[in-house]
Amino acid sequence: MKFVCDGLTLSEAVMKVSKACAVRTTAPIMECMKLTAEREEVRLLATDGELSIQKVIKAEVLEEGEICVPGKLFADFTSKLLGEEIALSTSEKGMEIKYRDSVSYMQTLSAEEFPAINLDIGENSFVMKSGGFKKLVAQTTFCCAQDDSRPVLKGCRLEFGSELEAVALDGYRLALTHAEILAKSGENAIICPARTLNEIARMLPDGDGEVTLYTQGGMLMVGGESLTIVSRLYQGEFIRKENVIPTKFSTEVTLSKAELIASAERAAILNRGDKNNLVTFDIVPGSVKISSVSDYGNVSESVAAQVEGVDLVISMNAKFLLDALRAVDEETVVLSFGSAISPFILQGKESKESLYLILPVRNAA
Amino acid sequence: MKFVCDGLTLSEAVMKVSKACAVRTTAPIMECMKLTAEREEVRLLATDGELSIQKVIKAEVLEEGEICVPGKLFADFTSKLLGEEIALSTSEKGMEIKYRDSVSYMQTLSAEEFPAINLDIGENSFVMKSGGFKKLVAQTTFCCAQDDSRPVLKGCRLEFGSELEAVALDGYRLALTHAEILAKSGENAIICPARTLNEIARMLPDGDGEVTLYTQGGMLMVGGESLTIVSRLYQGEFIRKENVIPTKFSTEVTLSKAELIASAERAAILNRGDKNNLVTFDIVPGSVKISSVSDYGNVSESVAAQVEGVDLVISMNAKFLLDALRAVDEETVVLSFGSAISPFILQGKESKESLYLILPVRNAA
Repeated sequence: MKFVCDGLTLSEAVMKVSKACAVRTTAPIMECMKLTAEREEVRLLATDGELSIQKVIKAEVLEEGEICVPGKLFADFTSKLLGEEIALSTSEKGMEIKYRDSVSYMQTLSAEEFPAINLDIGENSFVMKSGGFKKLVAQTTFCCAQDDSRPVLKGCRLEFGSELEAVALDGYRLALTHAEILAKSGENAIICPARTLNEIARMLPDGDGEVTLYTQGGMLMVGGESLTIVSRLYQGEFIRKENVIPTKFSTEVTLSKAELIASAERAAILNRGDKNNLVTFDIVPGSVKISSVSDYGNVSESVAAQVEGVDLVISMNAKFLLDALRAVDEETVVLSFGSAISPFILQGKESKESLYLILPVRNAA
Repeated sequence: MKFVCDGLTLSEAVMKVSKACAVRTTAPIMECMKLTAEREEVRLLATDGELSIQKVIKAEVLEEGEICVPGKLFADFTSKLLGEEIALSTSEKGMEIKYRDSVSYMQTLSAEEFPAINLDIGENSFVMKSGGFKKLVAQTTFCCAQDDSRPVLKGCRLEFGSELEAVALDGYRLALTHAEILAKSGENAIICPARTLNEIARMLPDGDGEVTLYTQGGMLMVGGESLTIVSRLYQGEFIRKENVIPTKFSTEVTLSKAELIASAERAAILNRGDKNNLVTFDIVPGSVKISSVSDYGNVSESVAAQVEGVDLVISMNAKFLLDALRAVDEETVVLSFGSAISPFILQGKESKESLYLILPVRNAA
């Protein structure tokens, strides 16, 4: 393999692809990036077994071939070669990297060891607006589980009906959001890793461009301009939102998002170090009293609110409340409660596009 | 104690003073900030036993008095109250914090437990340009020792002669810089903690303003506009620079700082994880060959240089080299070597204001 290309082009491509390189694995090949020089292109490909990213760049290919190099190292190294024209070639000493009158070598592994990634995924397809998809991802994935105790919860369930409905939950809270679908064919629901969705969202431009998601045989593929993301989908039972989202409420509170955020932030400061990060709402006619207590002191605030229904005292994790509030893009929010021990929901006042559900915490006090 | 003040003013003051609060100590009082309301002012004071910071703000004092509150917590809390007028007062439940129609309480400790800080330091004084002092600190303190094995090396030695000479060293490298003195009286040399110097530099504006350092009885004091920094000075024997800085050289290399930085950065990438972070210079007529070798591969570059004297192969820690290069504010640097096992020095080509000395590493290869 031998090719010559622009340093900046190479560096940008390597940086994007290296996001899919495995870290801290026992299989060195999974930390590698595969370079394939063919015709007038070089394909860079990395995978961690779940997420794969491929980028194709133009290059002057002098000898076709392929090789694997340590991905993160290659990304760091090329990031220091922006201004140079670079010649890469395989040699007995490893991959030879020539720039100006310097030459360096990088350890290589055979491309034959690299796992085969099937990019030919196209049975089902879903077309959406790029901006709408990005927004949906930003408003949903933060509710996905972080740990591996139930792997399927590390994904978002996307259901393609008359519109796209996304559900994420981690056992303590749930996000439900919707986005427009421009066209679709094939299956109706997938569970996609949150990490994959975030990478796709990062790849997409803002605005009204279109994005097409392809699925086939438990895999997802999104192809941008010369950049392709492929991901394994999760299989398994996902909690049915109908079973957890309450529909009957005894107390409904309408208030300013900014005021509630500021107040909850102050209450949360006193609770740092406390796992539950507890704040308590005391809902009375005309206002919500927000309080927290810790060894350091106590915060007690009052936020003006339009309250309908019965008075209620309810405690929750301040982080979950703040995450959900920050994800709502309206100035006024509505919180609907059943009882002090039932999950409550949080939505923007106008748009019902997204909904957050949070489990309360039983307050020992 | 009871006073009313502007939230933003309070928050900014608390943030600055909290830099001196102790962290992770067994004495809770050292993590506190002392508030003293007197006449039309409130004084905020924190100390970790070495560094003390005091800030005075205007306030409407309704009842004079003093109290201690947890410093970092108070800083975080007030940072969320920028827009409000705040009333602070002592009460049975702790320090009462009133804003709008909310009231919170913070745990307090008696002001009597707070260590006495003597701010009356003025026996000796040194007047410098603010900008010159900041530059001197930025070019020196990074060479101070980080660990406690020889506490005195966590400080910079400042000698006030016809000009200010600052020396910092950690056993592997040394920085020597100079700055103009506008006036001075009293003692000639102090060893000041690097952390104190960095805090003073952060407090000072850029430009041609003046700064006066006062010392007395092993203490240093700098008073800015309403902000006062007091610090313990280190006592003890400091390595005499004359004993370590070589004056005879067999090889002198003049080259572009930017090219050497870029090259050393690339060489250092391969060495991550290696404690010595080794790069090797092979100095020959007309160029310096910069190389590094690791399990991941090897980098071998050539940087054009004006070389005088004998050929030399010498290895060093890339981080020390890069730190020193980045601290020199000239485009062209001069490196002067004695032998492969002698310390070498690095300076800007024109100005001899600052000098860096680096110990080479014996290369096993």
